[in-house]
Amino acid sequence: MDLLKDKIMAEGRTVGKDIVKVDSFLNHQIDVEFLNEIGKEFFRQFGKEKIDKILTVEASGIAIACITAQYFKVPVIFAKKSQSRNLDNETYTSNIHSFTRQVTYQIRVAKKYLHPGERVLIVDDFLANGRAVMGLKDIIEQAEAELVGVGIVIEKGFQSGGKLLRDAGVKVISLSIIDSIQDGQIVFR
Amino acid sequence: MDLLKDKIMAEGRTVGKDIVKVDSFLNHQIDVEFLNEIGKEFFRQFGKEKIDKILTVEASGIAIACITAQYFKVPVIFAKKSQSRNLDNETYTSNIHSFTRQVTYQIRVAKKYLHPGERVLIVDDFLANGRAVMGLKDIIEQAEAELVGVGIVIEKGFQSGGKLLRDAGVKVISLSIIDSIQDGQIVFR
Repeated sequence: MDLLKDKIMAEGRTVGKDIVKVDSFLNHQIDVEFLNEIGKEFFRQFGKEKIDKILTVEASGIAIACITAQYFKVPVIFAKKSQSRNLDNETYTSNIHSFTRQVTYQIRVAKKYLHPGERVLIVDDFLANGRAVMGLKDIIEQAEAELVGVGIVIEKGFQSGGKLLRDAGVKVISLSIIDSIQDGQIVFR
Repeated sequence: MDLLKDKIMAEGRTVGKDIVKVDSFLNHQIDVEFLNEIGKEFFRQFGKEKIDKILTVEASGIAIACITAQYFKVPVIFAKKSQSRNLDNETYTSNIHSFTRQVTYQIRVAKKYLHPGERVLIVDDFLANGRAVMGLKDIIEQAEAELVGVGIVIEKGFQSGGKLLRDAGVKVISLSIIDSIQDGQIVFR
């Protein structure tokens, strides 16, 4: 998606060899008009599929999911994050290890909002190691719902998440894939 | 807002005398079409004012802020939450005490996204003790920006936040105000 690449080139800031900050438009300040272009593109990619729900994880996935959902005309569910604590019978949970922060946290979705047979699209801002998406996929499977695909705004192609998911047979559409960061410059695939 | 009261009556669940759960449409599963009605109403209430930015706090304010921002055609900023840690010169921070969880956490907004003189609308899902909004107001003041008003979806009229803010001269518009919960029944003002 050229519009997105242009935006990342214009506003993204790199830190070291593996961090791209896009907090001017995606995950701190949010350019809602631009997010509508993201939503339209996800609809162009997945709109021919029957989708019942859009699933993401708090916090930075929520904006993308809500704007995207307007094109699909379906509800959003955002998984809640908490440090692992006592299990709740009324929720599906999955544990996610964050390599960045070196902590394991739990994500939760109330059982009553995800039903067997429902067709679910996952969206998120970044795909790096893929642990968050794998956790959401795990929850979809626990609910006996169906994962239709995964829509990602920025995939870090130099990390393993994309391969992990595609090898598992998941349809992953990343609107931009960063292959490397060299001397502070972003190299797109 | 009658549509909202009807929705709360139909889908809200009460716990004890002071908790109303609206996670079927507002803060876990999100009814995006309904949220557009909320956004339109905030625009009807504040649309005559000049607004430069909409400010909220992660996570449950993000959806409301983004959908609302589409009517105002302005960016959203969501303050990030973290347990208090080392201060960052590049951010405005404020400490918020949560009475519910009995913890103090820090909210942060990067200085570069909030500028002197900018006119800011705060939106959030709930107003209870008002500590989150007071923290956002504190950050707006640090930035020498201007708080135009506060748009709240559900105000708990039996808690002190509404009075605290209105006594401080803040224009607070709550689309619904719950006066009490009696025997599991919600009593609106």
